[in-house]
Parts: sequence; structure tokens; C-alpha cells
Amino acid sequence: MNQTHDTALTSWIESANSPDTDFPIQNLPFGVFSRKGDLERRVGVAIGDQIVDVGESLSANLWSGKARDVARWCDRPTLNELMQAPKESLSQFRARLSELLAGTPGDETVINPLPPGALVPMAEAEMFPAAEIGDYTDFYASIYHATNVGKIFRPDSPLLPNYKHVPIGYHGRASSIVISGTEVTRPKGQTLPSGAKTPTFGPTEMLDYEAEVGFFVGRGNELGKPVPISEAEDHLFGICLVNDWSARDIQSWEYQPLGPFLSKNFATTISPWVVTWEALEPYRVPAFFRPPADPQPLPYLSSEKDKNEGGIDLNIEVYIRSMMMREAHLRPWRLSSASLADMYWTAAQMLTHHTSSGCNLQPGDLFASGTVSGPDAGSQGCMLELTRRGSEPIALPNGEERKFLHDGDEIILRAYFQREGAARIGLGECSGLIVASSRR
Amino acid sequence: MNQTHDTALTSWIESANSPDTDFPIQNLPFGVFSRKGDLERRVGVAIGDQIVDVGESLSANLWSGKARDVARWCDRPTLNELMQAPKESLSQFRARLSELLAGTPGDETVINPLPPGALVPMAEAEMFPAAEIGDYTDFYASIYHATNVGKIFRPDSPLLPNYKHVPIGYHGRASSIVISGTEVTRPKGQTLPSGAKTPTFGPTEMLDYEAEVGFFVGRGNELGKPVPISEAEDHLFGICLVNDWSARDIQSWEYQPLGPFLSKNFATTISPWVVTWEALEPYRVPAFFRPPADPQPLPYLSSEKDKNEGGIDLNIEVYIRSMMMREAHLRPWRLSSASLADMYWTAAQMLTHHTSSGCNLQPGDLFASGTVSGPDAGSQGCMLELTRRGSEPIALPNGEERKFLHDGDEIILRAYFQREGAARIGLGECSGLIVASSRR
Repeated sequence: MNQTHDTALTSWIESANSPDTDFPIQNLPFGVFSRKGDLERRVGVAIGDQIVDVGESLSANLWSGKARDVARWCDRPTLNELMQAPKESLSQFRARLSELLAGTPGDETVINPLPPGALVPMAEAEMFPAAEIGDYTDFYASIYHATNVGKIFRPDSPLLPNYKHVPIGYHGRASSIVISGTEVTRPKGQTLPSGAKTPTFGPTEMLDYEAEVGFFVGRGNELGKPVPISEAEDHLFGICLVNDWSARDIQSWEYQPLGPFLSKNFATTISPWVVTWEALEPYRVPAFFRPPADPQPLPYLSSEKDKNEGGIDLNIEVYIRSMMMREAHLRPWRLSSASLADMYWTAAQMLTHHTSSGCNLQPGDLFASGTVSGPDAGSQGCMLELTRRGSEPIALPNGEERKFLHDGDEIILRAYFQREGAARIGLGECSGLIVASSRR
Repeated sequence: MNQTHDTALTSWIESANSPDTDFPIQNLPFGVFSRKGDLERRVGVAIGDQIVDVGESLSANLWSGKARDVARWCDRPTLNELMQAPKESLSQFRARLSELLAGTPGDETVINPLPPGALVPMAEAEMFPAAEIGDYTDFYASIYHATNVGKIFRPDSPLLPNYKHVPIGYHGRASSIVISGTEVTRPKGQTLPSGAKTPTFGPTEMLDYEAEVGFFVGRGNELGKPVPISEAEDHLFGICLVNDWSARDIQSWEYQPLGPFLSKNFATTISPWVVTWEALEPYRVPAFFRPPADPQPLPYLSSEKDKNEGGIDLNIEVYIRSMMMREAHLRPWRLSSASLADMYWTAAQMLTHHTSSGCNLQPGDLFASGTVSGPDAGSQGCMLELTRRGSEPIALPNGEERKFLHDGDEIILRAYFQREGAARIGLGECSGLIVASSRR
């Protein structure tokens, strides 16, 4: 573990030292922002409640060598170029930025080394998707989610025969990926009402969220050149939160035989800050423990290193706030909490599997984990599971009930790392508010 | 029908008047090319065996008004900007280009109005994908294909209950779309050999092609704003050929429950020339005739106009040439021939369905029809159907047999319009040669 992870490290930016912040000096995630009212998008780094506008610091003679290369790539409207920087360069940038931001608030010997204008309060910024996402893929890596969903549709054989061999995934829609805070219009679609013989078309009555983690690809691979598992993590830039909104009634009618389509492509919300692969080093854990009765992964999906530290111990929480809760000034209410460490497949296994056909990944591509659900009650990452497809409605703190989402409901995903001996760092929020279908 | 479709029209470019050419003056498709050895990509228009480098003609005072706007967008490395031009502007450009190219070879009163360098022989050009394709979607619009494939896997209920209600589609991989002529590496993947209980990993033994037509989106739609069927064709720019290469053994093991993934994403080949929506006007026919027992499309997928002329009478042919055939100087041999007019769903229905959830389409997005198969023997657009999953091998003219594709096999798609009273125009070729899996 290097010094940028040191739990004792503080910043001269006071808000970065608050026990509540997701963005202490040990985090330093990248994002794309603009100053409110300004059209120019730039790459920034989050620290406390501030954003370092790295591009504005370029003239100040603060950067040299490989760190300077990375700093230069911040002067761009997306992270795509920066994402393909060598890990070595990213590491040097991180170490230097940590140095520049380190200090004790109130200590008069510490001087803000950043030029005027290089710190932007988050409250004065608008955020955008971190990258131009060429392709988006969604996996299905939680065996608990797959089993819970399978039980609803196939009580006798919830888990399909391929699940423990194949990191199941499918291609999603890139164009409809939106940034946290964007309103989500309730989609219309074809559904087959219970007992009906012919479908009807109208607003979904089973609108759901799925709490997922997104992995941004850094360095790409050429078409026809698979990435071996030993090199998979070299191609991963960082992680964010993903809400894979889903219309369950549309999904169950349309998904055979080619998979989910319109039930998923009306919106996918991502959080703005990308926590880098280096920042999450202290929180790595062994991969999912496969009981002896389970098949071992095929050799192309196996490595000792991945088995020993392929997991990521990230806590993911889902909150809801209905329109009535907002009107009553009630705080968002926690629906569930789960750990990414409980996923059956690791990030490296997903990436290697994705390229095993020869498929090329490009810098800025995004793949998501699939719904993160755990083994326990209260750890189910979507409403389909929590309410068993609406058959067991859940009660909100103000007495409202939910089978699925209503117009006016807001879903907020949060995630943080917390481990003995390491700082608490977070991913920020991924939120979306449901609005009624358009008349058209 | 306007004068650009006039069958009597000839060009002073002699090769454009050959009965064999796909690119007479009635076609004028757009593509992206570079002069061989030059890195600069530009938009061009095909005429006979030549390419009009429109950007090179800008200085010659040939263009005015809206036609000039379109001509200017040719000075770009992709068609994305040009694709969103208003149909009116595209039409004026087409009419003016037709005027500039019209004439009789040998007629000394006709003078080539193009400046030197504005005509590039195809033989001296390299072609590229016409657009930067943000998202790629693949439909499944041939009821014959769906039925043939269904019979192999589910003899009792070949067609799933949703098929006649939903234009089934799924999201494909955009990054691995390659231009005609690109070699295709045999993919590796997990398969479950017949009778085995656990899967193995290795090169696919069931490599297949799928003959499809691709539709390029012109003007996009905003997220949350579906496109009504009455406006769907306003969003379509033009068509090309698509070979949706498929690894059937990987597909059957991986596709449940989220659809095809690695079995399709190793390569998708497209033809370089995009025939515009206006150019295919003379070849429009009624949509698929639904027998009275079939459900009528739901209202959001219905319009009188689409019913009367939503079909496209395009003939699609598939040819194979094996390595042994090449060595023996045998010509490509025709495997099948089918018509796009036999598709159960029209282009407008596919586009409207795609946006019905609120999904946003962007200029340059591509969606494909799915395998084009007809009702008759010899009209099956993939090998899975032709050989009934390898159980009835087909014989090649030199005595070789094929269940699926071998290394060294080349698949060539061709397509042309031919109707009484209209010129014969074609889409050019979409070819790919299979090469062995890499060792890695």
C-alpha cells in the first residue's frame, strides 16, 4: 500500500477531512464537470466538497514528468484519453496530487499551491458522464440475484445450467446512459397482462431499479486479441455506480429468445465520479468462495491472484424517497444494502470473458456488474427481488406501500469502502427521479 | 417518381452504364473512402467504378443552396453529420449530382464538369465504415428465419408467442463492426459438447454467417420522445448489407437468459456503400401480407402508408468461396437468395418499436433486419438453416461439404433491386474471409 492510501493523511481542504465525505484525500476520483452556466466540459478530481480543475493548474509549474502527461489530459471534455494512460503515469499523477492537497487545515505553514480558479465548489458545478461510452455491457454476476430472480420465474430450476460456468452478460444501450440527477421518464411498451391472450401497449406498471457497479475500461484491446486474465486488471480504469432501470412487465414479454431490449434501454443512470483502480487497492478481498460442489472456473477464467484478491469489498446501499416523503421532509429511506464482494464473478473474469471471443474493448467502454444482491434479507438490489415481483409489497416509513416504483419516486444509490486500517472512501451518489410517461 | 430515378438516364462515365454495375446514375450511394496510401478519410459517392470526391468539387462553383450544404458535409471523415441533413437537402443534392453526372459517353457536347481530382477510381481507394456507429441493434424480422431456427431448437413450438406482436431485437456490439474485406478470426468460446456435462473452451466448431440488411439512422430522436410510425421513415438515411457472423455452439450455451453475447460480438461486417432512402423509392412494395389468422400489429406499429408501401423489394444473395475453390480458380458459388420484401416487420415498425420505450437513436446508429430468409428452399440466409444445424451438409461445386464454415472460406453478400420500369441498382458487396483462431 502506498502513501496515497495512508489513513492518517489529511488535506488543507477542510471538507475533505469530514468523516461523512465520500471524497477524502485517499480517494481522488475523476469526473467531468462544467461551471454552472458554462458550456465547457473539463476533467476534474473530487476532494471533499470541491473539484480540482486540473487544467487550470497546468500553467502553475506544479506538474512534471508522467504526472504532467495525465494533468494535460484533464484539459478535455471527457476522460477517454486520460483513461488509456499507463497505470504508472496515473499513479504518479495521483501521488503528486495527493502531495499538493495534503496538509492540516488551519496550519499556517501550509499554503494552497493551486492557482486561483483551480478549485471549484461542487455546488457551483454541473456533472456529466465521465466518458463518451462507445459500448455498454451489462453482466449478471451476482448468484444471489440470479437465483432470486430465477425462483420467481422457474421455481424448480432457478439457476440455469450455464450460470456457474459462464459470466453471463449482454450488450446494453450506450445512447441512453444518463448522469445522476437526470429525470427518468416512465417507459411505455408491450406487455401481456396476467391471463390475457394478446398484449397491450402502455406505460409500464412494473418499473424497477437495479443497483450495480460500473467498470470503465482504460486501455483497450485489438479485435481478435483476447485479454488473458493475468492482464485483465491492466485494462480497468475505475468504477462508478450504475442504476440499470428495468420495466419488468415489458421484459418478461419481450426477452425470449434474444434478451432484454426495450425493458432496459429507456435509461441507465451512472454516478459522475470514477474511483480509480489504484484508489480501491486497500479494499481488495478474495474472490467469491466456491463451495467444493461448484465447478471451478475454466482455465481461461482462473488465476491464483484473481482467486486471492479479485474481489472488491464495496458496500452498496439503495435509498428511496417518494413524492409524499419529500413533501413531508422525510429523508431517503434505505431499501437494501449489499456487498460487491459477494459477486460470483470478478471484474477480471468479466473483462477476460468479454474479450475471449476476440471482442475489442475501447477506452471509455463501460461494463456493469449486474444487480448486486447478497445472501441475506435486506440485501436484494432490486424491487423485483425485494417484493417477489410485487407479491409482497414493502412499506415505506410514512405508511405508503410499494410493489414497484411510482411516478415521483426517487432512487438513490450510494456506495462506500470501509475496512479496518484503511480510510472510508465513497463513490458519491447515483440518483434518478421517475416522471410520468409522455402523452405522445 | 422523380427524374433521378429515370431508367433512361445515362452517365458520361461509361462504367456507370454497364448492365452489371451496382452503381448506375440512378443509385448514387454514399460511402467513406481514402485514396490508397493516404490516411485522410472523406465522404464520396459511387458511380460505376468511380467515386466522386465531393469535397474536391466544392471550389468549382457547382453547388448552391441546400445541395451545397450537403456537399460541404462530404468534406468529413464520416457520414454522421451528413446523415442528419434534412431530406429536402439530400434530395436537392441528389438531383444536382445526377445532373452533373448525366450524359452519353462519346457525346462530345457533354463536358465533365468536375474539377481534376474529383473522380477517384474505386480500384485506387480504400473503404471504411460509413459512420461512427454509436449503437448497433439487431432485429429478427424474418418469420421464416425465426420459424426455421425455432424448429431446430423447439420442434413443437418453433415460433414463440411474442413473435407476431413484437419486432424482436437486441443490442449488438458496435466496436467490432468491420468493413467488407476485413478478415474474420474464428472466435473461441465456451461450448457444451453434445452429451457432455461440463463445458469446454476452444475455437467454435459451428461458425456461421447471417445475411442481413442494415438501416442507418439519419435524424435522431431525444431520449423519452418516441418516434410515431407516421414519422419513422423521416429518421432513416439509407441501407447497406450486414453479415452478422455467429458462433452457433457458443450461442446455444450462453444465450439463456440474456441473449446472444460472445457468439456475435467477435465481428459484424458491413458493406461500404449506403443506398439512400430516396434511391430505393422505386422499389417499395406492400408490407408482409398477414394472413387473417395472424394478429394485426398494435396501433403504435400500424399505419396505412406502412401497410401499403412499407416493404422493400431487395434481392439478397449469399455466395461462398472456399480456399480450395480459390486455388482452383472457381467463382464464388451461390448458397441462397431471398427478398427483403418477405420480412414480417417493416423498417418503420422496427424503428418505431425501438424508440417506443423512449430510447434515443442518434445519427449514424445502425440497426439490422436479422437474417433475411424466405419461404422457399434455397432462400435461407444462414448455414444453421441451410444445413439444419449441420445435420444435412451442403455440397460445394468442387465436391467439398459444409456443415458450417471452415477456415479459408469467404462469404460474400450481394444485393440488388430489380423491378419492371425501374433501373437495376445494387448495394455492392459485403465480404469476409475466415482465418484460424489465434493461439493466444
